[in-house]
Amino acid sequence: MSNVNCQRAKVARKRVYLDYAATTPQDPRVEKAMRPVLRGAFGNPSSIHAEGVAAKKALDNARTTVARCLEAHAEEIVFTSGGTEANNLAIFGIVSPLLKGVPHSYAGRVVNNPRLGDSAPPLVRGIPHIVTTNIEHASVLEPLRRLEKEGKANVTYVPVEENGVVKPEKIIAAVRPTTVLVSVMYANNEIGTIQPIRKIGKLLSSVKGQKSKVKSPHGKAYPLFHVDACQAPSYLPCLANALGVDLMSLDAHKIYGPKGVGALYVRRGTGLPAQLLGGGQERGHRSTTENVAGIVGFAEALTLAMARRKKESERVKKLRDLLCAVILKNNSTAVVNGSVEEGERLPNNLNISITGVDTEFLTLELDAAGIAVSTKSSCLKGEKESYVVHALAPDDHKRASSTLRFTLGRETTKKEIEYTAKTLKKLLEFKH
Amino acid sequence: MSNVNCQRAKVARKRVYLDYAATTPQDPRVEKAMRPVLRGAFGNPSSIHAEGVAAKKALDNARTTVARCLEAHAEEIVFTSGGTEANNLAIFGIVSPLLKGVPHSYAGRVVNNPRLGDSAPPLVRGIPHIVTTNIEHASVLEPLRRLEKEGKANVTYVPVEENGVVKPEKIIAAVRPTTVLVSVMYANNEIGTIQPIRKIGKLLSSVKGQKSKVKSPHGKAYPLFHVDACQAPSYLPCLANALGVDLMSLDAHKIYGPKGVGALYVRRGTGLPAQLLGGGQERGHRSTTENVAGIVGFAEALTLAMARRKKESERVKKLRDLLCAVILKNNSTAVVNGSVEEGERLPNNLNISITGVDTEFLTLELDAAGIAVSTKSSCLKGEKESYVVHALAPDDHKRASSTLRFTLGRETTKKEIEYTAKTLKKLLEFKH
Repeated sequence: MSNVNCQRAKVARKRVYLDYAATTPQDPRVEKAMRPVLRGAFGNPSSIHAEGVAAKKALDNARTTVARCLEAHAEEIVFTSGGTEANNLAIFGIVSPLLKGVPHSYAGRVVNNPRLGDSAPPLVRGIPHIVTTNIEHASVLEPLRRLEKEGKANVTYVPVEENGVVKPEKIIAAVRPTTVLVSVMYANNEIGTIQPIRKIGKLLSSVKGQKSKVKSPHGKAYPLFHVDACQAPSYLPCLANALGVDLMSLDAHKIYGPKGVGALYVRRGTGLPAQLLGGGQERGHRSTTENVAGIVGFAEALTLAMARRKKESERVKKLRDLLCAVILKNNSTAVVNGSVEEGERLPNNLNISITGVDTEFLTLELDAAGIAVSTKSSCLKGEKESYVVHALAPDDHKRASSTLRFTLGRETTKKEIEYTAKTLKKLLEFKH
Repeated sequence: MSNVNCQRAKVARKRVYLDYAATTPQDPRVEKAMRPVLRGAFGNPSSIHAEGVAAKKALDNARTTVARCLEAHAEEIVFTSGGTEANNLAIFGIVSPLLKGVPHSYAGRVVNNPRLGDSAPPLVRGIPHIVTTNIEHASVLEPLRRLEKEGKANVTYVPVEENGVVKPEKIIAAVRPTTVLVSVMYANNEIGTIQPIRKIGKLLSSVKGQKSKVKSPHGKAYPLFHVDACQAPSYLPCLANALGVDLMSLDAHKIYGPKGVGALYVRRGTGLPAQLLGGGQERGHRSTTENVAGIVGFAEALTLAMARRKKESERVKKLRDLLCAVILKNNSTAVVNGSVEEGERLPNNLNISITGVDTEFLTLELDAAGIAVSTKSSCLKGEKESYVVHALAPDDHKRASSTLRFTLGRETTKKEIEYTAKTLKKLLEFKH
């Protein structure tokens, strides 16, 4: 990885960056792939002249590449401005065509749900229902909350177990006749736990269309299955059919690609009205002049991630396990948040709570020592507690407010991990 | 411009690109401005460590730069994925908070509007009203059509005059007690006509809050004034206060910046709920990890556009006038679409109709001769007629289906224009 290192500017030259879940540096090979587009294929892909055709060709090639990485069809890839837009598009796109048929007079008529008891959200009759978990990313939770608030959807937030993994049976049990969408993230951005997507997909396929009483405008049987896979491609296979997903969100900047680009996989035949309207690009799923260079960079980043997935997973896992062992040895109050079982956690993620320690301040001290880590999701500024860790241990507020997240990546070395463990030990000893 | 020329790849090296309204090649200085961000400030601007702080600083600087170009406040700039998203955000953002208060039972109760006669769209009582023109970009028209279709807004499409310019008085006359938004584009993407934004802004400011019976959730008086300025910054001043706008859309790739980045100017205090939900970035107006490098490139592109605006306007105007004179001299059936008056047309735009000529085929012939032009907006693939030219001469279908658009730019030379005029003459002579 010396290529990457030597191309970084001064600010990062001597630093230890352990916040790859927040964002990754762009791989020089990604920049290299984008360069010819910026210079030679700068045209508008919708134009019929040579410049437009060159841009269209670059776009088509990138679409085919991304599709191949997911073992999908090119027409199933909708490029977006990132994972957030992909998640928003999946949710609003599936729910919005159903709203025209919803009698507005239903809004506000609350129906109790005996199955889930008092903790269940109130259900409103005749409105689409969505099943999700309580540790999804904000870009899934916020659209769901807006739909709930506006009386346009009922949502069941299935709680994950203490290990940060949801039980597939609980997801299936939450499915109702009005359920149109099940949205479960592949790997959590904070604690790195991997959800049993393949199993949920399989179980869902057996109930699809069986229970549903909602008439589908596109002929696909409900509930559809959406997976936020933004944190996954560097470490997990993301094959659409094998996972049994109908919709899957990806984000370039989490996999060493450019910021501002992502994609939503949309299974063939799934009606998904655009949320961004205009020139009708992306076969009507998303209007706006395509960010051709960014998309080409994303395709390259995804290809690289797939190619080195297994080797890189093993490499970072060893380093992560080393860091984990040293921290636990040195700190009797430290606990790991989320499962540490093989296959239940991303190999690059370590999320611990150290009760009694102000980890936000510790993050700044580590930063001063040249180490970049985080306490929780970078999308949760201002909030003191991590809702993800809170979900694992609802009664232990100290645990949710003393989290520390290390996420390793391509440039992480053993030396860096040893330095981090040593520095952390020093800083914590000083406190006690 | 030799810098630009020598850095372009082979496809464009010997070509004459005259489709700058569709998209512009990225200026090498834009790439140069983006490079340090990609390498040194790659962090997530929401992270609190040095990498995040560096990214945040780059983002803040870019925001200040863009604000300064518009004589606005930094907090009034919301970065988006482009002009389309900016237009969508302005329209859906202004209308959506009003919909909660709209009694849904009103939907479908049509009220005739005596003022506009039979040509007026049916009005639905109690629903927000929007005034626009009939030559707006698809990314304004499509959101409006969806709102109409869903019974969420009434829209008056004020027709432009035969010269492609709207009469400010007609805009004001269309304002009703329920009007919450007036959306008029600054310069048209097809025919380049410039709308009297400053005058409309002034007239609107005198009726703001006077006529309106809609209670504003944010205290700002209705109607608000939105301007799609995507085609403007290279040739027209875009000062928010001088124009009297409340919302203004910009797009980087129309001004030699990167694709996939734009901005919406939102006047202080204007409530604008996000349409993209998640981490709450852009002060709650738009969630998603910011495309820092792209935003920095956009700021640089806007700065360059502003700096060379007057000189470049004069330069391309001379070349455009030369091309226009030669074409009109050689073709007795050619007419210019839209005003040619000083101040009523972008200096880089020439849009003509040559009755009886299949201009789509002509475009391909010109392309084969190394010249990139277009027939109409690149966002209107598939449609035979230009709705913009149709708006100027509603009875002359031949005119709307025989359009040819030349849009000049930074790299356009006199030699290129002469070659284009000569080639066009040859191709047309051959046909007659």
